[in-house]
Amino acid sequence: MIELAQPINTASLIYVLDFIGVIACAVAGTMLAISKGFDLFGCILASMVNAIGGGTIRDVMLDRHPLFWTIDLNYVFAITITSILCQMFFRPTARMNGVLKLFDAIGLSAFSVIGLTVALSMGATPLIAVMMAVMTSIAGGIMRDMICQELPMVLQKEIYITASILGSLTYLGLGRLGVVAWLCELAMLMVVFGVRMLAVRYDWHLPNIRMV
Amino acid sequence: MIELAQPINTASLIYVLDFIGVIACAVAGTMLAISKGFDLFGCILASMVNAIGGGTIRDVMLDRHPLFWTIDLNYVFAITITSILCQMFFRPTARMNGVLKLFDAIGLSAFSVIGLTVALSMGATPLIAVMMAVMTSIAGGIMRDMICQELPMVLQKEIYITASILGSLTYLGLGRLGVVAWLCELAMLMVVFGVRMLAVRYDWHLPNIRMV
Amino acid sequence: MIELAQPINTASLIYVLDFIGVIACAVAGTMLAISKGFDLFGCILASMVNAIGGGTIRDVMLDRHPLFWTIDLNYVFAITITSILCQMFFRPTARMNGVLKLFDAIGLSAFSVIGLTVALSMGATPLIAVMMAVMTSIAGGIMRDMICQELPMVLQKEIYITASILGSLTYLGLGRLGVVAWLCELAMLMVVFGVRMLAVRYDWHLPNIRMV
Repeated sequence: MIELAQPINTASLIYVLDFIGVIACAVAGTMLAISKGFDLFGCILASMVNAIGGGTIRDVMLDRHPLFWTIDLNYVFAITITSILCQMFFRPTARMNGVLKLFDAIGLSAFSVIGLTVALSMGATPLIAVMMAVMTSIAGGIMRDMICQELPMVLQKEIYITASILGSLTYLGLGRLGVVAWLCELAMLMVVFGVRMLAVRYDWHLPNIRMV
Repeated sequence: MIELAQPINTASLIYVLDFIGVIACAVAGTMLAISKGFDLFGCILASMVNAIGGGTIRDVMLDRHPLFWTIDLNYVFAITITSILCQMFFRPTARMNGVLKLFDAIGLSAFSVIGLTVALSMGATPLIAVMMAVMTSIAGGIMRDMICQELPMVLQKEIYITASILGSLTYLGLGRLGVVAWLCELAMLMVVFGVRMLAVRYDWHLPNIRMV
Repeated sequence: MIELAQPINTASLIYVLDFIGVIACAVAGTMLAISKGFDLFGCILASMVNAIGGGTIRDVMLDRHPLFWTIDLNYVFAITITSILCQMFFRPTARMNGVLKLFDAIGLSAFSVIGLTVALSMGATPLIAVMMAVMTSIAGGIMRDMICQELPMVLQKEIYITASILGSLTYLGLGRLGVVAWLCELAMLMVVFGVRMLAVRYDWHLPNIRMV
């Protein structure tokens, strides 16, 4: 490993981005739940599933206990407050949707980095770590859609899993080249965020690979 | 703690109430499964999910092994027998529905108390313990609805989560005042049951909190 | 136990059958996902859920870590390659469907044997072991159907859970009679496979047990 003075505290940065993502998920979960006629606590539960469901699945699969949100209560507080404020005041507008897509892409990046690094720190092989990055970033949204009786958005046309995988490969590739961990994390954050925002901006979708 | 002679064996009482709840859940799960065209074992599986799914999620989240129903086989026996009898003889009637709502409220109370006390005994903070009380009492019903392709009832209009939370707060509040555990449990049982039955009786729903 | 020279390496046989089942599940998961409009990675994820979801649930319930597919990466490779090939070239035809039903029955047998023996090796009681055999063989398909917004096929009319239970009872019965483990496993494989194929061939369904 090339030792490089670390100008940014990556851990703090990722923690902040993580919470931006959690808030984006809480808003998205609440909006969908409202449209389904869920009540106060139903909306809060849907936003919890959306925001911390993916990380929970990852921790259960990796046998990592206690679960992250049971020891850092800020997650539960942030989600509950966001969901309540959202139920009181939020009106979806075109501009708001743009902000949400931005927040959501930030969350996707942070969740992916956390999923990958947590899995690696638990001794997972690179392949499994990439799967955990994807899991952390999408399983919450999938479970929210399942509870709300919707076909999971992220499995359909959006470049979502793809962004998470490309970022993970960047991290692993740089790491193999001897780049220090915090630089790998920064690069991964930027790749996931960049790919996702470009996909939103230019309406990218994965091509159909059917040959016959 | 004020020591008070314990006139009732709370543990036995909760165990009995727990099984009343399990049977109510097994009946509800079987009825929904029948209406969806599930076969003999499909109905049994739906009733298992409904009756012990919430407790299973709680135990997995708290890393509490072995799971309660793998060491006390009475759960599996009670659910299987209830589901089979139900498939053979049950016809929903207005009177039966009333009995079921009563049983279901008893189950909600017992599941909540068990969820809260198990979580506290595992060292969970009060906030997480309340979430586990809610989880234990509603996650089974939510998963049953997900399997049966229905929007989860308990997330919509019923005072269900609310009753569980109010009971939990009662337990924690009394405990903070120094009241002995069995009295806290009794009070919680009564609050959850009372709030739920009043909600059924007077058709209470949570108000919409939208401000704009 | 009567010691009997073992003419077949049962462990290897089951491993091979397991992968035939995994491939059948990956094809089935991909086909359903394509029909729902999932993209490349959405289809791969659906096929993962279908093929290794049941075993994952079993391992989480039994607290058996690390999860089998995180230490034997062949599962992930086999599923990914199958799903991609399937997306590129697969066209459902009557003959193909027949082959798939055959593969699927092989998988059901292997998954059941693995579920039962894993649970017994973890010290589970026979009843719980039978439940784990059923879980291993059907939970993946149920979760796939939940993600894809379909009523779970295996809970409806097919003799599926029944075949798994009958095979498990065969294993446990022969074991009680002192038959060696590998013979019990072979017998269980044949019973599950035989019952399932007969059910497909003669369109067997469980009778309705309603009495009134």
